[in-house]
Amino acid sequence: MLMYQKELQQLMEVNKMANFSKVSVKEDARTELHDQLGLTGAEVSVNNLPAGAGVPFVHSHKKNEEIYMILSGKGKAVIDGETVDLKAGDWVRISPAAKRQFSAAEDSPISYVCIQVRENSLEEYTAGDAVIG
Amino acid sequence: MLMYQKELQQLMEVNKMANFSKVSVKEDARTELHDQLGLTGAEVSVNNLPAGAGVPFVHSHKKNEEIYMILSGKGKAVIDGETVDLKAGDWVRISPAAKRQFSAAEDSPISYVCIQVRENSLEEYTAGDAVIG
Repeated sequence: MLMYQKELQQLMEVNKMANFSKVSVKEDARTELHDQLGLTGAEVSVNNLPAGAGVPFVHSHKKNEEIYMILSGKGKAVIDGETVDLKAGDWVRISPAAKRQFSAAEDSPISYVCIQVRENSLEEYTAGDAVIG
Repeated sequence: MLMYQKELQQLMEVNKMANFSKVSVKEDARTELHDQLGLTGAEVSVNNLPAGAGVPFVHSHKKNEEIYMILSGKGKAVIDGETVDLKAGDWVRISPAAKRQFSAAEDSPISYVCIQVRENSLEEYTAGDAVIG
């Protein structure tokens, strides 16, 4: 059993070093991609809340900015006491210290992606970071 | 005119400091969210390629890991010479140095999100970075 665990760990290390990785996400309540994809600059989760359901706690972060994308359905976020209506195509950035709580609408489920990144970690991007060819 | 520009810049600075920001993304060919949302840890773009179209160049990155989410349609990525078929629900991580080129299928458009983050920038996340309540 210990041998098997070691081999599995080695396989995971190899996967982390590969030039790319791919997964297909099913419609589970929550799918966390950091370990599945071997991410090093973000945690990404795909979330599905049924109508009338909500994340059961308020939370904030120590260092991480969160970026939410609404994939389908309707719901709301309460951010530092302010209610923000959400629908497909909406994107929201939330600063680490803001207190947040997401929920689906009473009459609609909601599917959303949550991206966690370290605040102020991005340096150059797109043209500034790309090498063409 | 200079006064107006200064006021606009101040408004943008205020927005960057706000605890959250929100935009609704339309179905344009490409929408870049870094400036619109005041992101500090990622650049995020939403991309729509018509059937038969592709990004017209191969590119890699200096420091940034890229994470792609396929929203709808079909297509492919060629990554370091390897062809990866893509469909809705697929997620792909690509290391900075890998050479990549995305295209829609001949018979289907493709919509996808591209997230750029600095490689190895994430420290703790989820339970390790969250504060409950």
